[in-house]
Amino acid sequence: MMTRNLSSAAHTLTVADRRAHYGHEGAVLWLTGLSASGKSSLAMALEHALTGLGYSCYVLDGDNVRAGLNANLGFSHDDRTENIRRVGEVAALFADAGLICITAFISPYRADRLRARQCCTRPFHEIHVAADLGACEARDPKGLYKKARAGQVPDFTGISAPYEAPEQPDYIVDSASETLAASVEKLIAYVVAKLPLAS
Amino acid sequence: MMTRNLSSAAHTLTVADRRAHYGHEGAVLWLTGLSASGKSSLAMALEHALTGLGYSCYVLDGDNVRAGLNANLGFSHDDRTENIRRVGEVAALFADAGLICITAFISPYRADRLRARQCCTRPFHEIHVAADLGACEARDPKGLYKKARAGQVPDFTGISAPYEAPEQPDYIVDSASETLAASVEKLIAYVVAKLPLAS
Repeated sequence: MMTRNLSSAAHTLTVADRRAHYGHEGAVLWLTGLSASGKSSLAMALEHALTGLGYSCYVLDGDNVRAGLNANLGFSHDDRTENIRRVGEVAALFADAGLICITAFISPYRADRLRARQCCTRPFHEIHVAADLGACEARDPKGLYKKARAGQVPDFTGISAPYEAPEQPDYIVDSASETLAASVEKLIAYVVAKLPLAS
Repeated sequence: MMTRNLSSAAHTLTVADRRAHYGHEGAVLWLTGLSASGKSSLAMALEHALTGLGYSCYVLDGDNVRAGLNANLGFSHDDRTENIRRVGEVAALFADAGLICITAFISPYRADRLRARQCCTRPFHEIHVAADLGACEARDPKGLYKKARAGQVPDFTGISAPYEAPEQPDYIVDSASETLAASVEKLIAYVVAKLPLAS
């Protein structure tokens, strides 16, 4: 780390100031799971529902990160690691700001997810969106699994690249057998219990 | 840009939803100026004051970006450009989330600042913290100008690397001749006029 030009001006808003402003803790909800497991749909529905309850939230996903901040990264192991490193750092900034940041990335490597947790100074919840390979491959909304099986997509998680499932996730979503609405309802209950709104 | 894995789930919260939630537009206030011109102090004081008025804000500066997201970058021209590119993208995400993101970086190159503006889909205000080199060098709180004059700090903006002042900034802070409190008071009036709170 290069530090020569670092400002000495401390952030004058405290964690307590931000909690009072937003009515809840800043935090990261880190969704991990295979392609087509339902991460992004779940993240968007959760953001919508939590905002309706009064939470301040933001979703980071491939749509708003891969096209911008991480447009200079590909899908090699090194680039995936850097992709997730940056997402982890940005999620930590949103949590530091006082928001609930919901991330929706495959994030297949345990070490990368651990680093995201470690760089976050606020509560971090690893949520395994746990539809298995069979279920995800049966959905295959974009035909990516079919292409990967045909050898047309290198390093495809679950087919030609590993997915290291969380060993001790904070929460598991059974997105193979239950509906999106049911998953969202349960996840909202989890968030409301763990990150309660000030009354 | 690699897009193969992009999610198709649209963000379900609209710009109008976020405006209604926070009571104001998401936006970027981009502070640019020489080292020791007062950017970080101004940013922190502005964040504190705006939050007191009911705005939702966050400051990005060297403290929370160089140590984390951009810890793998140095101070060469290429690394400075990538530093500012990432800051611009993250500021754009905060503005998209609905917050007022205040950035405090020297950001010496016009092209880099223009790119930050272009990647932002919400209002972007370039604010020149315009203390001149003489005033900044006279302050020199960390002795960096002295070291730079002695040739001990390469590529130091204003001494051995260029500072390209904004040609048409949205706002100019006269931080050489007026007090921090006076600068903050005027800047608050500017923000309240440009990004009014819903009544």
